[in-house]
Amino acid sequence: MPTSVPRITALDTYDIRFPTSRELDGSDAMNPDPDYSAAYLVLRTDAQEGLEGHGFTFTIGRGNDVQVAAIDALRAHVVGRSLDELCADPGSLGRDLIGDSQLRWLGPEKGVMHMAIGAVINAVWDLAAKREGKPLWQLLADAEPEWLAGQIDYRYLTDALTREEAVAILRRGKEGRAARELDLLARGYPAYTTSPGWLGYSDEKLTRLARQAVADGFTQIKLKVGADLDDDIRRLRAARAAVGPDVRIAIDANQRWNVDEAVAWTTALAEFDPYWIEEPTSPDDVLGHAAVRAGVAPVKVATGEHVQNRIIFKQLLQAGAIDVLQLDAARVGGVNENLAILLLAAKFSVPVCPHAGGVGLCELVQHLSMFDYLAVSGTVEGRMIEFVDHLHQHFVDPVVMRDGRYTAPRAPGFSARMAPESMARFTYPDGEFWAADLAGAAEAADATAGAGDRETAA
Amino acid sequence: MPTSVPRITALDTYDIRFPTSRELDGSDAMNPDPDYSAAYLVLRTDAQEGLEGHGFTFTIGRGNDVQVAAIDALRAHVVGRSLDELCADPGSLGRDLIGDSQLRWLGPEKGVMHMAIGAVINAVWDLAAKREGKPLWQLLADAEPEWLAGQIDYRYLTDALTREEAVAILRRGKEGRAARELDLLARGYPAYTTSPGWLGYSDEKLTRLARQAVADGFTQIKLKVGADLDDDIRRLRAARAAVGPDVRIAIDANQRWNVDEAVAWTTALAEFDPYWIEEPTSPDDVLGHAAVRAGVAPVKVATGEHVQNRIIFKQLLQAGAIDVLQLDAARVGGVNENLAILLLAAKFSVPVCPHAGGVGLCELVQHLSMFDYLAVSGTVEGRMIEFVDHLHQHFVDPVVMRDGRYTAPRAPGFSARMAPESMARFTYPDGEFWAADLAGAAEAADATAGAGDRETAA
Repeated sequence: MPTSVPRITALDTYDIRFPTSRELDGSDAMNPDPDYSAAYLVLRTDAQEGLEGHGFTFTIGRGNDVQVAAIDALRAHVVGRSLDELCADPGSLGRDLIGDSQLRWLGPEKGVMHMAIGAVINAVWDLAAKREGKPLWQLLADAEPEWLAGQIDYRYLTDALTREEAVAILRRGKEGRAARELDLLARGYPAYTTSPGWLGYSDEKLTRLARQAVADGFTQIKLKVGADLDDDIRRLRAARAAVGPDVRIAIDANQRWNVDEAVAWTTALAEFDPYWIEEPTSPDDVLGHAAVRAGVAPVKVATGEHVQNRIIFKQLLQAGAIDVLQLDAARVGGVNENLAILLLAAKFSVPVCPHAGGVGLCELVQHLSMFDYLAVSGTVEGRMIEFVDHLHQHFVDPVVMRDGRYTAPRAPGFSARMAPESMARFTYPDGEFWAADLAGAAEAADATAGAGDRETAA
Repeated sequence: MPTSVPRITALDTYDIRFPTSRELDGSDAMNPDPDYSAAYLVLRTDAQEGLEGHGFTFTIGRGNDVQVAAIDALRAHVVGRSLDELCADPGSLGRDLIGDSQLRWLGPEKGVMHMAIGAVINAVWDLAAKREGKPLWQLLADAEPEWLAGQIDYRYLTDALTREEAVAILRRGKEGRAARELDLLARGYPAYTTSPGWLGYSDEKLTRLARQAVADGFTQIKLKVGADLDDDIRRLRAARAAVGPDVRIAIDANQRWNVDEAVAWTTALAEFDPYWIEEPTSPDDVLGHAAVRAGVAPVKVATGEHVQNRIIFKQLLQAGAIDVLQLDAARVGGVNENLAILLLAAKFSVPVCPHAGGVGLCELVQHLSMFDYLAVSGTVEGRMIEFVDHLHQHFVDPVVMRDGRYTAPRAPGFSARMAPESMARFTYPDGEFWAADLAGAAEAADATAGAGDRETAA
């Protein structure tokens, strides 16, 4: 018997892993050999034309299966929901998922379970935007301030941001929006590139890629630091020589340091004029970041890709601990929580330069920054989206860069759909690539058997 | 071929769930119907006499499977390890687990993945204590300060606690230890009870259990608050009438409030002289707790059962945000991280009153408090372990209460072993209890079919 109202009929999950560790793409002081991965989900519907919602959590390899299990645990909250109700109020699902009193114990609002919630919420916004026939940035920028402000969970926020303040910021954001949209469509959104700066690259490759970045129109590059100070001095010197004095060089320690180390190490690199020091210490350490900021000024302090939720961001802003807020599209509880984070940043006048790279993070986060430009902060001054040039070919609507800027996506949705052939090939462990790879590894292990193993060698 | 060195041969996991929601045991303002559960693991060895290590994460029902998947993800780090090496330096495994660069992305050091690490680390300490033939509290209290200080990961800690300071605190802790051990063995460790105070209980049951608590020798009880202010006023009045003016009544909001609500609500209950307000707001909100503390004094502020790691505890202490630190034995990265937390608390002179209850948390945490008394803070002044009187019968070495105090456990290990018959009965979904329960639910659903369901009713 056909249903009269379109509904979510299934939530299907996929463990997708790309073997990026073979090339040392993505290598940094804390993550020497990542296999960039996605715990991926598809919301299937019985709406006409096979409408689907796509979402994912980015991980770097092992544990992607745990993340898939966490998304699976949310299925019962989603399947059977009316599309009309869901798209009219994605926040209602967010409240149900975050408010599930038993699952909440596994966070609350942090780590594996919270990222799973974010992936599902993002997939709902993908659905909502496709239904409206708009890219997500446009759906958000077109929305009424009162409705958008109602999409935010103000629990634990009201000492820094109330609903009334959110509405006021969004109303102000409407002023001059048409001119900004023309600018966005004509020129795109500024970006910086991390592609030259991975720790695993040789100085020659670093220099070559840094020059290429400037030739491609980027005005900022980023280098990974924190493993060895002498290496960092040498690499920063090479990078500065390659790009000249006018291109900004950000540095990124990926949480490597204690507070005193962060201050000392950054100070030791000051002669190369770093623009910001990113993730100098634990993403949980609000007071630590405030101390680092006081110690390294005028170098700016940036963090956010591992900041677990709006509550830590709120405190980073309250404590004056950061100069640059690096939200991540797939670490927190989805678009709704990122709305709160964008509004907090606007309230505290701190620029947002989102984290991207990974698998599909560039594709997602461009929508949030473009919405911010059109309807929240109203400016691109001091703002850039990170860009890393890998894995885009696996997406159906990959980002399009022009002159070092993100062009505004025009396809309806959240640009989250992975190409079916990529999913088939890189599903772990049964996809074509991994099946062959694991069979090869097993064969190699067999070939060396007899030379003694760990169990019997003692 | 037999191995010459005993090793870990397997890490076996179990999804154990107790149907506590049927009785509203454990009901509070955020957790109305928990099914107290454990993601349980056994480290098997080829040592003589079938030596095993037991550990677990406590959850409250749904998602226990996700937690089991996270423990499974750690297996490759553990199986094959030498028992001698592991027991000589459990911290080495901790560094490997926390340092796994790919799994780290799923935290770092928080939520599902970090609790899984804690469960494995705790199981190793259970093994180590059994091998020494000592209860864990004694193993820790007997350890050399230098060795114990070496068990701590100082990353992100050194602005509050260095290794040298840790050694100094532990050396000072040795003074007078023999007399304290005699006192501990004779009188046990003080406790307070939460058994009367669950939100789901009637006023009559609350009054009866509060009187019983006083008769049992407890000098503090705890009530859940935060769902409805009028109810809270009525329940607190009844509790105060039942226990008289000299028994302390703590109140616990389970993260229900924003900062301003926490101050207003606690102030509205001040006439009943609450001893502390527990979890007034988000466990992530260091600055929020500091504001609440300033607003509700002289009522004390307590938190910790959901504090994710040493980095948040460090900041709660640095910011002067809490009067009472409530560590949890199974939320953070195991004994090693709790060593750091006990030392931080000692450094900042904040009393530790651990969170307990749940499944087996009383059994675990008594060891940490007794060690603290003997060898860290050296006092029980202002210190109590929470006690909740349920589910102890499922443990092989359950806690033994006498006159409102925990008696010191004498069996070797960490008191973590669940009774095999309980595990068999309450394994989800295939154990005897759940198989019957789920079959009954399916039958009931069949019986009501035809009355219309969600899919077709619209």
